[in-house]
Amino acid sequence: MPPRYLSFRCSLPWLILLLQALILIRSLLSLPALGSTYHLPLSGFPGVDHIYQPSSSYPEFQDVNHIVIFGFGFFLMVLRRYGFSSTAFNFLLVVLGVQCSVLVGDLLTELVFLSFFSCSLAKAMVGTTAVVISTGAVLGKANPGQLIVMTLVEIIIFNVSRYINWRFLQVPESLTLMHVHLFGAYFGLAVTSRFPEPPPGLDKHRSTPKSDLLSMLGTVFVWVFWPSFNSTLAEFQREAKLNTYLALAVSAVAAFMLSALTSKDGKFRMAHIHSAVLAGGVTISYTAHRIHYPWIAMILGLLGSGITVLGSHCLQRCFNPALKLQDTSGVHFTFGLPAVLGAVAAVVLRVVEEGTETQWNDLSSLGYLIFVEVGAFCQTISIALITGLITGLILNIKLLKAVHVSKYFDDQFYWEVSFKMVSH
Amino acid sequence: MPPRYLSFRCSLPWLILLLQALILIRSLLSLPALGSTYHLPLSGFPGVDHIYQPSSSYPEFQDVNHIVIFGFGFFLMVLRRYGFSSTAFNFLLVVLGVQCSVLVGDLLTELVFLSFFSCSLAKAMVGTTAVVISTGAVLGKANPGQLIVMTLVEIIIFNVSRYINWRFLQVPESLTLMHVHLFGAYFGLAVTSRFPEPPPGLDKHRSTPKSDLLSMLGTVFVWVFWPSFNSTLAEFQREAKLNTYLALAVSAVAAFMLSALTSKDGKFRMAHIHSAVLAGGVTISYTAHRIHYPWIAMILGLLGSGITVLGSHCLQRCFNPALKLQDTSGVHFTFGLPAVLGAVAAVVLRVVEEGTETQWNDLSSLGYLIFVEVGAFCQTISIALITGLITGLILNIKLLKAVHVSKYFDDQFYWEVSFKMVSH
Amino acid sequence: MPPRYLSFRCSLPWLILLLQALILIRSLLSLPALGSTYHLPLSGFPGVDHIYQPSSSYPEFQDVNHIVIFGFGFFLMVLRRYGFSSTAFNFLLVVLGVQCSVLVGDLLTELVFLSFFSCSLAKAMVGTTAVVISTGAVLGKANPGQLIVMTLVEIIIFNVSRYINWRFLQVPESLTLMHVHLFGAYFGLAVTSRFPEPPPGLDKHRSTPKSDLLSMLGTVFVWVFWPSFNSTLAEFQREAKLNTYLALAVSAVAAFMLSALTSKDGKFRMAHIHSAVLAGGVTISYTAHRIHYPWIAMILGLLGSGITVLGSHCLQRCFNPALKLQDTSGVHFTFGLPAVLGAVAAVVLRVVEEGTETQWNDLSSLGYLIFVEVGAFCQTISIALITGLITGLILNIKLLKAVHVSKYFDDQFYWEVSFKMVSH
Repeated sequence: MPPRYLSFRCSLPWLILLLQALILIRSLLSLPALGSTYHLPLSGFPGVDHIYQPSSSYPEFQDVNHIVIFGFGFFLMVLRRYGFSSTAFNFLLVVLGVQCSVLVGDLLTELVFLSFFSCSLAKAMVGTTAVVISTGAVLGKANPGQLIVMTLVEIIIFNVSRYINWRFLQVPESLTLMHVHLFGAYFGLAVTSRFPEPPPGLDKHRSTPKSDLLSMLGTVFVWVFWPSFNSTLAEFQREAKLNTYLALAVSAVAAFMLSALTSKDGKFRMAHIHSAVLAGGVTISYTAHRIHYPWIAMILGLLGSGITVLGSHCLQRCFNPALKLQDTSGVHFTFGLPAVLGAVAAVVLRVVEEGTETQWNDLSSLGYLIFVEVGAFCQTISIALITGLITGLILNIKLLKAVHVSKYFDDQFYWEVSFKMVSH
Repeated sequence: MPPRYLSFRCSLPWLILLLQALILIRSLLSLPALGSTYHLPLSGFPGVDHIYQPSSSYPEFQDVNHIVIFGFGFFLMVLRRYGFSSTAFNFLLVVLGVQCSVLVGDLLTELVFLSFFSCSLAKAMVGTTAVVISTGAVLGKANPGQLIVMTLVEIIIFNVSRYINWRFLQVPESLTLMHVHLFGAYFGLAVTSRFPEPPPGLDKHRSTPKSDLLSMLGTVFVWVFWPSFNSTLAEFQREAKLNTYLALAVSAVAAFMLSALTSKDGKFRMAHIHSAVLAGGVTISYTAHRIHYPWIAMILGLLGSGITVLGSHCLQRCFNPALKLQDTSGVHFTFGLPAVLGAVAAVVLRVVEEGTETQWNDLSSLGYLIFVEVGAFCQTISIALITGLITGLILNIKLLKAVHVSKYFDDQFYWEVSFKMVSH
Repeated sequence: MPPRYLSFRCSLPWLILLLQALILIRSLLSLPALGSTYHLPLSGFPGVDHIYQPSSSYPEFQDVNHIVIFGFGFFLMVLRRYGFSSTAFNFLLVVLGVQCSVLVGDLLTELVFLSFFSCSLAKAMVGTTAVVISTGAVLGKANPGQLIVMTLVEIIIFNVSRYINWRFLQVPESLTLMHVHLFGAYFGLAVTSRFPEPPPGLDKHRSTPKSDLLSMLGTVFVWVFWPSFNSTLAEFQREAKLNTYLALAVSAVAAFMLSALTSKDGKFRMAHIHSAVLAGGVTISYTAHRIHYPWIAMILGLLGSGITVLGSHCLQRCFNPALKLQDTSGVHFTFGLPAVLGAVAAVVLRVVEEGTETQWNDLSSLGYLIFVEVGAFCQTISIALITGLITGLILNIKLLKAVHVSKYFDDQFYWEVSFKMVSH
C-alpha cells in the first residue's frame, strides 16, 4: 500500500512539528512577565522554579525519569515483532507528554487564575505515566499519529480531572497525581475498545522467550525504582519509600506463589510475574506516605498481587471476550485493578484512622469523609471511561489513518529494517 | 512425568505462603511493643527505624538494591536455556531473603537479648548477597523449593556466624557483613557437592554469545554500583568508595591482560572478563574503609584479578573434577578465592599498621591480633563448609523432590513457554 | 593465520601490563610527598583529594560512570557481529583511560608547576569520553593494541589542548573539558581516515534488529543520565541540569520528526533516532550552565537534532565517499557536528549577552571576545585533526599488527567463542 505510507509521511512529522512549535512559542511568550532579573534564571518557563522543590531532589527525579523512559519502554516489549516501536514510541510520547504537561498546566493556570496547575518537571513526569499506561492498552494497534493525539487529549483531561478532585473533593494536590494509574488504565481500556479486533489467526501479539526476557529487564527496573516514584511528591518521603518497598517485596513473593498455584502443572508464567510484582507498588500509591504499620503495607502488597493474578484469569477468559476488548499488555489487571484496590484501601484506612481518633462518635463527619473519598474515585474513573470512549472514536476518524488490522503489532510498518526480521 | 509436575505445584506455593505468613505475623505481633506513638511510625518493624541510618543514605541503598536484584539477576544468566529461571529465581530469593533476614534478626534479638541483630533493610540486603552467591553454585540444579529452604537455612547460619565473629572475635559489626562473599561461596560449594553431576553429554550448561552478552550487561551493572555496596555500611564512606573504585579499575584492566595471556591463541575469553572484573571489589571488601594509600588498593585489585583467572584454570582442570564438584557459574573463583585473598590482606595490613604504630615492640599483642583475625576467617569458612554440606544433604531428601539430572539447566521444566525455545 | 594470533598474544598483554605498572609506580612514588598525616588519607594519589569536590557529588559521579561504562558500551553495539568487542573494549579503554588521565595530569602538573592538571576522578571520567567517541569512529577496524596506544596519545594531546585553551585563551577550567565531544569526534575521524577501507562486499558492518535494540538500550541510558554529565563539573548545577533536560527532550522529539521526513516512505530509521536524541545534549554542553531562558535551550536542542539528521544524509552520501572515510558508528554527525553548532551558539550567546550589557558601545572588547572564543574552537579542532592524522599513521606501523580488512568487524578474531556465532 504505497499511498498509505506516503500519506503517513505527510501527516505525522507536521503534527509533531506543530506541537513542538506551540510549546516553544508558549515558553517564549511567557518570558517577559517573569524572566526579567538576571539571577533569577529559568523562571521564564512556567513552574520551572519548582523543578527541584525540596520535596523532589535530583536523584529521585532521575529515578522517575528512568522508570518512565527506560523501565516502561522495555516493560512494554512483550510483542515479538514490535520491539522497536514499543521502546521508541514510548520514548517519543514521554518527551512530548512531559512538555505538553507543562504547557497545559501553564495554559490552565492562566485560564483559571490558579497556581494549582503550575507544573514542575517532576510532576509532569509523574503525570505522563498515565499516557504510558494507556499506550500499553492500545500497543501495536494505534499508529504514532493516533498516539500523539491521544497523549494530548489525555493530558488535558487528566489535569482537568485532577483539578476537580482538588477543588471540589478536597484531595491534597500531591495525591491527585496518584490517580495516574487508575486514570491511565481505564482511559486506555476505553480507547482500545473502539479499535477493531485483530483477526483470530494473527499470532504476532504473542511473546517469545527473548521478548519476555527484555520485558523482564524493564520490569526489574520499574520495580527497583518504584519507591522513588511513590515518594517523589509525597510529604513524608521516608515512610513512602519504606512502605512502598515492603509492599513491592511482598507482592513479588506472592506473584511467584500465585503464578504456580493458578497455572497448569504448577509451572510459573512469565506474564504473571511481569504484572504481579508491580501490583504492590500501584496498590500502595495512595497510602504509602501515611501508613504507620509495616504489616498494613505488606498486606496491601499481598492483596494487590492477588487481585492482579486472579484478575488476569477472569478478565482474559470472561470479561475481555464478552466486551470484545483487547488489552494488549494487560494494563487492566496490572494497573487498573490494583489501583481500584488501593483506592478502596485508602478509604478504609482513612475512616478507621479518623474513627479511632474520634472514638467513633462523629459518624456524620465520617460519612462525609467516605462520600468525598469515594466521590474522587468515581469521578476519576468515570471521566476516564467517558473521555476514553470519545477519544477512541476520534482516533478512528479517517484523517488519522488508522492501521489496518492485518498490519497490527508489526515493526515493519513503521521502521526501515535493513535485514529480514528474524522473529526478533 | 506429569505426577512430578503436579506434586511440584502442591509443595512450592505453600512453602512460600508459609514463610510469607510467618513474616507477616511476626511483624504484626511485634507491633504493640513499639508503634504506639503516632509520629514514630514504622517502628513496629524490627529495626526499621534504622533503615536510613546516617551511614546508608537512600541513593546508596538503591544502588545495593540494584546490584542484588538486577545486577546479579543478569550476571547469572550464563546458561543458554536458563535465562528466565536465572533472573526470576534470583529475584524471588532476594525479596524473600531480605524479609527473612529481618525476621531472623528480630527473633535472634529476642533470644539473645541483644541489639546486635536488629537489622535494617540495607543490612538485610547486603546479607542476602550470600544467598545470591550460593545460588550461583547450584544454578540450574536446584529447584525453587530447594533454593528457598537453602535461603532460609543460610540466612540463619550466616547470622549466627556473624554473631560469633562479633561476640567472641571482636570483629566490628559492620565488618561481619563483609564476610558475605566468603560465606556465600563456600556454603554454595558445599551444597553443590551433594548434588549429582550432570551426565557428560548434556550441553545445556554452555553459554551462547547472546547469554554471554546479557550476562555482561549484568556484570557491568554490578561493577558500576560496587563502590556503593562496599561503602553503604562502612564508617569512612568516601575512602571506601574511592578505594573500591581503584581496585575495581585495576582488576578490570588486569582481567583483560590475564585473559589474553592464559587463553589459547591470545584471544579473550568472556567468562574470564565476567569473573575477574569483579574480583577487585571482592578482595577489597574487608579493607576498603581503612586503606590510606591508593596504591595498596590498586595492588589488591591486581592480585584479586590474578587469583581469579589463575584459579579458574586450576580449579576447573584439577580441583573440581577430582572432587566431582560442579560449580555452575564459577562462584569459587569469582567470589571465594578473592575473598580469601582479601581476608589474608586484611590481616597483613592490620598487623603492619599496628606494628608500625608500636614500632614492633609489643609482639604479644600483635600475635593476639593475628590469632583473632585468622580465627574469624577460619570460623566463617568452616561453618560455611560444614553447614553447607549438611544443607546439601537436607536438600536432597525426597520431600523436596530434587530435579532429575536430565532436567538440569532447563527453563522448560519450571516455566510455561508458549513458543518453541529457540536456543535462547 | 596462526602466527598472527600468537603474536597478538605476545604484544597486547605486555602493553597493558606496562601501562598499569607505570600508573602503579607513579602513585607509589608520589606518596611520601603527600600522604604523611594519618587522617588525611588518600592524598597520595594526585588529585584524589578533589574527587568529591562540592561540585561533583557521589550520585552525579555514579551517573557519569554509568554513562561512560554502560551507556556508551551498549550504544556502540550497532555492528551485528561485534557485540562482545564493542562493550568489552569500551570497558577496557575507559578503566585504562581514567587511570592514564590521572597519571598524565599528575606528570604534567610536575612539568609545568601548575595545579591546572590536578585531576579528580570525575574530571578524568569526563575527559575519557573523548576516547570513547574516537573509538566509535574506528570501531571494528582497530585491534585492542592500537586502541590502547590511541587512548594514551589522545589523553595526552587532549590535556595539552585543554591547557592551551585555559592558559592562552582564557577558557574557564571546567569548560575546557566540554570540548571533549569536539575533540573526540575529529580526532577519531582523522585516525579512521588512515585505516584502509573495508571491501565493498563485506556486510559485517550492518546492524540487525537485535543489535539495534541493544544499542537503543545504551542510548536511552546515555540520554537519561546526560544532565548529570553536563552538570557534574558546572558552576550552576541546577541550571545545567534543567537546560540539558530541555534540550534533550526537544531533540528527541525532533529526531522522530526529522527521521520520518527524510527517510523513504516516511518510516522511522533507528540509526537516526540513536544519533539525534543525543544531539541536544552535545549541542548544549558549552552553554548549559549559563542559559537563562528555557526557549534558548529548546531551540538549541532542535537545531542540534536537525544538524545531526541532515548531516548524516550529506556526510554519508557525499563527504565520506569523497574522502574515503568510514566512520563506523557515525561519530561525525552524532558528536562532531552538534559540538560545532554548540561552539558557534556559545559565541553568539556570549556576544549578545555582553553586547546587551554594554549596550553595544564597547565593540573592540566584543571583537576580542569573539576572537578568543573562535580561537579556542579552532585551536581544539585543528589540534584534533592534525594529531589524529599523525596517530592514524603511527597506529598502522607494522609493530602494532593492524587487522586485515577481511577480518574487520568480527568478534571471532578477538574472542574465544564456544558456539557458532549465530549472527548475534
